[in-house]
Amino acid sequence: MVETIGIVGGGQLGRMLTEAAKPLGFDVVVTNKDPMSPAAQVGAREIVAPLDSEQAIDQLAEQADVLTWEIEHIPAHYLCVTEEEGDVEIQPSPRTLATIQDKLRQKQMLVANDIPVAPFIDGIDNIAYGLGNVGPYIVKTRTRGYDGRGNLVTAETDPEVIKTTLDAADMIGPYLTEQTVDFDKELSVVVARDMDGKTTMYAVTETYHEENICHTTITPARIEQRQHVAATDLAHDTLGVLQGAGVFAIEMFLRGDDVMVNEIAPRVHNSGHWTIEGAMTSQFEQHIRAITGMPLGSTRMRAPAAVMINILGHRDEPFDREGLDEVLAYPDTHVHLYGKSSRPARKIGHITVLGDTPDEALEMAHAARDKMPV
Amino acid sequence: MVETIGIVGGGQLGRMLTEAAKPLGFDVVVTNKDPMSPAAQVGAREIVAPLDSEQAIDQLAEQADVLTWEIEHIPAHYLCVTEEEGDVEIQPSPRTLATIQDKLRQKQMLVANDIPVAPFIDGIDNIAYGLGNVGPYIVKTRTRGYDGRGNLVTAETDPEVIKTTLDAADMIGPYLTEQTVDFDKELSVVVARDMDGKTTMYAVTETYHEENICHTTITPARIEQRQHVAATDLAHDTLGVLQGAGVFAIEMFLRGDDVMVNEIAPRVHNSGHWTIEGAMTSQFEQHIRAITGMPLGSTRMRAPAAVMINILGHRDEPFDREGLDEVLAYPDTHVHLYGKSSRPARKIGHITVLGDTPDEALEMAHAARDKMPV
Repeated sequence: MVETIGIVGGGQLGRMLTEAAKPLGFDVVVTNKDPMSPAAQVGAREIVAPLDSEQAIDQLAEQADVLTWEIEHIPAHYLCVTEEEGDVEIQPSPRTLATIQDKLRQKQMLVANDIPVAPFIDGIDNIAYGLGNVGPYIVKTRTRGYDGRGNLVTAETDPEVIKTTLDAADMIGPYLTEQTVDFDKELSVVVARDMDGKTTMYAVTETYHEENICHTTITPARIEQRQHVAATDLAHDTLGVLQGAGVFAIEMFLRGDDVMVNEIAPRVHNSGHWTIEGAMTSQFEQHIRAITGMPLGSTRMRAPAAVMINILGHRDEPFDREGLDEVLAYPDTHVHLYGKSSRPARKIGHITVLGDTPDEALEMAHAARDKMPV
Repeated sequence: MVETIGIVGGGQLGRMLTEAAKPLGFDVVVTNKDPMSPAAQVGAREIVAPLDSEQAIDQLAEQADVLTWEIEHIPAHYLCVTEEEGDVEIQPSPRTLATIQDKLRQKQMLVANDIPVAPFIDGIDNIAYGLGNVGPYIVKTRTRGYDGRGNLVTAETDPEVIKTTLDAADMIGPYLTEQTVDFDKELSVVVARDMDGKTTMYAVTETYHEENICHTTITPARIEQRQHVAATDLAHDTLGVLQGAGVFAIEMFLRGDDVMVNEIAPRVHNSGHWTIEGAMTSQFEQHIRAITGMPLGSTRMRAPAAVMINILGHRDEPFDREGLDEVLAYPDTHVHLYGKSSRPARKIGHITVLGDTPDEALEMAHAARDKMPV
């Protein structure tokens, strides 16, 4: 029986996982490179170590009954070895994590399973041949990209020129290159699987990014019924190729009535933050239930619509809750601060607004956000 | 501007206050007689000291920008002095706390303000004269009673006989004696006041006690409209005689269409636990908002009905989450464990079930509770 949950990473996702795990009676231990991580501030024990430390994973495995993560840029292969040694349960499958954390292998796995994705090639050498002359293209580092770090959009096809730009941007290879998609909307579907193989799906969410950082989500997505069916079918099929128990986010492009997978997150995800207040079971509790062998909870929405807006740091000063009073004066508006120091464009919290329609909630969320210096 | 909230007491109420305060960006420090209190387990800092320690209150006052409590059996007069010294804001008013924590003075205050209460007398000496021959009577210790400790129900009127029984039960005076009320239902209304004097009220809740310990609450109360009006009017009038910002619970007896106040809790209360999932703003967030000068949130219910059942310890062993899997298989069912060691009849957690009608939610809650060894 699980008593202690180990999480690689103690950032905001580890924090909200901890907040969900504690009322269910679990102890939580996280790894984090600095002490007093967002997760530790809400009661997680802490192993202070870099995310890539194998020794920290050994310690986590010793202290925890089940091991999971809040970020994919961790030693997946070492987790595979740890799992094979059988000392600790690891969920979801570290093999799936290993595949996903390499964006080229992730795409190849999806193609091999007939999941539609944007055209892509290995590397940057044969763009014109592999992707045709339909730029712009997006060059990605195969590993360790996060929140758009590790992405370069370019109209170039000359590998020499591209390499110079990549070096200047400090983007270290290997790379893959994708055709950019002229999408109508970006969607995300947060799915979960329990230990018995049962699955659940939250409502389809519209996601909006700026400089590759998610800033707003709108649930349910304002799309046609047939588009909705396409998105949920795709989410279902994609979950079918992912192994293990836990929450996954399937990020998609919608163009016309067609959907294709953009990226998979093998973990709780920013596009599911609205579920804390907006659904019967939050994505964080859902993940905790899934990895500890408990049944999944209902994903039904609590209100007709939920909008989430990230609070991004705007300067190198601690965030002093400026404007929060005014934000909380809006009805059914909820604030989650992560206990992180502020840096420009750093996610330091989020606001969720529930409302009667997506547009109404969005309007209220914008009005609330405008009260804050973000 | 408030950065740190100090709470006298670090039990389950302090824990849930901490859980509400953290996402709003506040630090929390509590006092608790043992280390690793329920509140500390979710990230509150801790001053290890008995509840009656004045020194601990000094320390809290030094570390916090606003001071509150989760239990009323604390040095209220010392809090009054601390407030007058002006070193720290204290909410709600410690003078109101001082009055309420003495059940005789609480009753006298209510009577002085025309709030209906059961007939009562000071002490145990003149029961027959003061209360007539309409027993049974309930003898209460004026201070420090909690969850029914400090109550004696008796048909006796002879003070000598009563005193012997009180001594045997280790109930130390002074006392007050009330006429028992042959009520139809017990009700509770959780109310709040912010710093600007604005007030809110949650839906009227039915409460059920066994051996004086609350075990079930049902919201909204299954009562007639005119009874509902009487209960909310009484809650409103009662809040009018209480001073300061924060959450208060007004516990009442309903008999026919008449309501009278049984007891006031100058703090978040067991009868408001359902608000965590069942209302737009939980009573815990409401209290945090109130005492930090923020606007109150909406008290609207998230579902037509909410039932809460306490999880009581059944043996002197740690609770191992036995049966929890089955409980969580019920839809819209939520579990909160407090991280407390188990003792017979000790509150170690609660279950909240939301549903379409009070009876449906109650049935589901009973079915869920029956899965647990409580």
